[in-house]
Amino acid sequence: MIPIRFLSDDDVKSILDIRNTVACVERAYVLKAKQRARLFPSISEDLIHGIADMDIKSGLLDEDDLYGLKLVSWFGSNERIGLPALTGLVMVFDLKNGFPKAIINARYLTAMRTGAAGAVGVKHLANPDSDVLLVVGTGFQAVFQIAATLSEVPTIRKVYAFNPLRYDSAEKFLSSIRSELEKIPEDQYTSSKEHWKHRIAAVQFIPVENPLKVLEEADAVITVTPSRKPLIFKEWIRPGTHFSCIGADMPGKQELDVKIFDGAVVFTDDAQQSLTVGEVQCAVKAGLIHEENKPTEIGHLILGDVKGRKKDTDITIFDSTGIALQDLAVSRFLVSKAEELNLGRVIHL
Amino acid sequence: MIPIRFLSDDDVKSILDIRNTVACVERAYVLKAKQRARLFPSISEDLIHGIADMDIKSGLLDEDDLYGLKLVSWFGSNERIGLPALTGLVMVFDLKNGFPKAIINARYLTAMRTGAAGAVGVKHLANPDSDVLLVVGTGFQAVFQIAATLSEVPTIRKVYAFNPLRYDSAEKFLSSIRSELEKIPEDQYTSSKEHWKHRIAAVQFIPVENPLKVLEEADAVITVTPSRKPLIFKEWIRPGTHFSCIGADMPGKQELDVKIFDGAVVFTDDAQQSLTVGEVQCAVKAGLIHEENKPTEIGHLILGDVKGRKKDTDITIFDSTGIALQDLAVSRFLVSKAEELNLGRVIHL
Repeated sequence: MIPIRFLSDDDVKSILDIRNTVACVERAYVLKAKQRARLFPSISEDLIHGIADMDIKSGLLDEDDLYGLKLVSWFGSNERIGLPALTGLVMVFDLKNGFPKAIINARYLTAMRTGAAGAVGVKHLANPDSDVLLVVGTGFQAVFQIAATLSEVPTIRKVYAFNPLRYDSAEKFLSSIRSELEKIPEDQYTSSKEHWKHRIAAVQFIPVENPLKVLEEADAVITVTPSRKPLIFKEWIRPGTHFSCIGADMPGKQELDVKIFDGAVVFTDDAQQSLTVGEVQCAVKAGLIHEENKPTEIGHLILGDVKGRKKDTDITIFDSTGIALQDLAVSRFLVSKAEELNLGRVIHL
Repeated sequence: MIPIRFLSDDDVKSILDIRNTVACVERAYVLKAKQRARLFPSISEDLIHGIADMDIKSGLLDEDDLYGLKLVSWFGSNERIGLPALTGLVMVFDLKNGFPKAIINARYLTAMRTGAAGAVGVKHLANPDSDVLLVVGTGFQAVFQIAATLSEVPTIRKVYAFNPLRYDSAEKFLSSIRSELEKIPEDQYTSSKEHWKHRIAAVQFIPVENPLKVLEEADAVITVTPSRKPLIFKEWIRPGTHFSCIGADMPGKQELDVKIFDGAVVFTDDAQQSLTVGEVQCAVKAGLIHEENKPTEIGHLILGDVKGRKKDTDITIFDSTGIALQDLAVSRFLVSKAEELNLGRVIHL
């Protein structure tokens, strides 16, 4: 009989905050760069063509003596009947004997670790004193991107939100943004709720009809859509802009004009995945990736092995394809906190 | 909050028997042949080189409105400290909305569905009235192969067991074989325990020092070892012999001399997997697989779409690589029985 700890979405919510999630995600990137972690091939499959898909991401963290996987499914039509579109589970196994250690609801965990990824890109690559953020996409994930970026990049004072399909979606999204952001704790352990509330209150939130004008002002752009064609064009952007590209995670996805890659400083979470399923894939096909702009794994930047932005006019790009090590590093933290706080349920299988 | 049913190994044992497992496995093969099921790419990784590995198999059963995966790990050194070497979990999801339905301990399930696979090969391909079985390999899995074959092929009256490394392992294995077989129920619902006990008692079990002599007599051979080189040679076998090859499930594994494939009638569970990770892989490399002996999926044989053995001197081979659909079909049966009998535990994630 094998004891396994189960953590519900509520358990996860009671443990994770922006600070500890970002720390876990940065740690995952660093362990990968130090080759103290491995990714296994990822699986991405249509379940019902055009209606539902799923992916399985798996890997191993040597340093934590664990390995595991996350299966996440997307059923877009769920939302029409009041169910979440994204559901899934993380399974964590012990690298000492192969026994399962924990099973964790992947919904909030995925949203938090993905928000952290976008923010980590802005934090390490945007110009210092960046104060304007443009978020492209106003779905479920956008609020997590904004939350993590406001926390990690304290200079941001203005957030534009652009929905490429409908202006009123951006308006609606921002109408409740402050209360939505307050629901995502910045720091559950040391800092006060009031601090986070003040931080959010100090930010201006503006819906965007035409991204062209806003791009003259934006220091950092986060793209977080399911798009399969470019939404932002080279001619629209000004020197010095940073892009965190979150949406592209399978073949055929694209958010940026490939010309933006020409001469840019490009980082990614996983070099191989970036070339095939990430934002970089289209630039590769267009022949615009060369020795000088080929993606470097961001763990090396966090470690200080390489320089990111060289001058304030550089275009920087972080292509976040999403890797199992983010999930595993966060899960490891969840399991150790849950053991400490006696959260979740332990079952014998 | 998503309700998920958890089934422990004891729950699985209380539901599965040879008859219902074989029915599920045959159904999985048939659904694959009818294209009412799909396999996703499988992942096979070394965790600790030479010490531990794991694989993730996943797929979808349209007909049952479910999809899912099985992660199984192998830590050989566990046995030295009294822990099982093979551990793992099956996760089943609802194809209507992506919600997790069940999580099942994979240990007994894997043993049972793998035993069923070997027996299905013998049942559909060996000569009628086969009465001598040779099992090559005397590990954990061998007893499940014998159990399923004795149940599915009632003409078998003599079982030889051969351990390619040590004769005394085969002797030891057979010393308790009757009681081990009795622990695996043939039919928990309709037939009597006495019937199964009599069946087992009527069989002669003989350890083998030299397989050469036994092969003159064997009608069917099941190979179930982790071997990476041939254990049975073409010169040793007689016309008409059937082989169910269970061991080969990853690149580099091999149990049969490739020359045995020359002129043989070859079936498999998955044509693509067979060519790359199954017993067929070495014959492919040796250039011995042609149009007339290329593997046909066994579902077509069970359905009656194709003929298996054409004459009593044919050499027949079933290359069982192990597919997720076996696990999913068995899991679906487990879940529906567990709901009916209120077995396992339901947790909200």
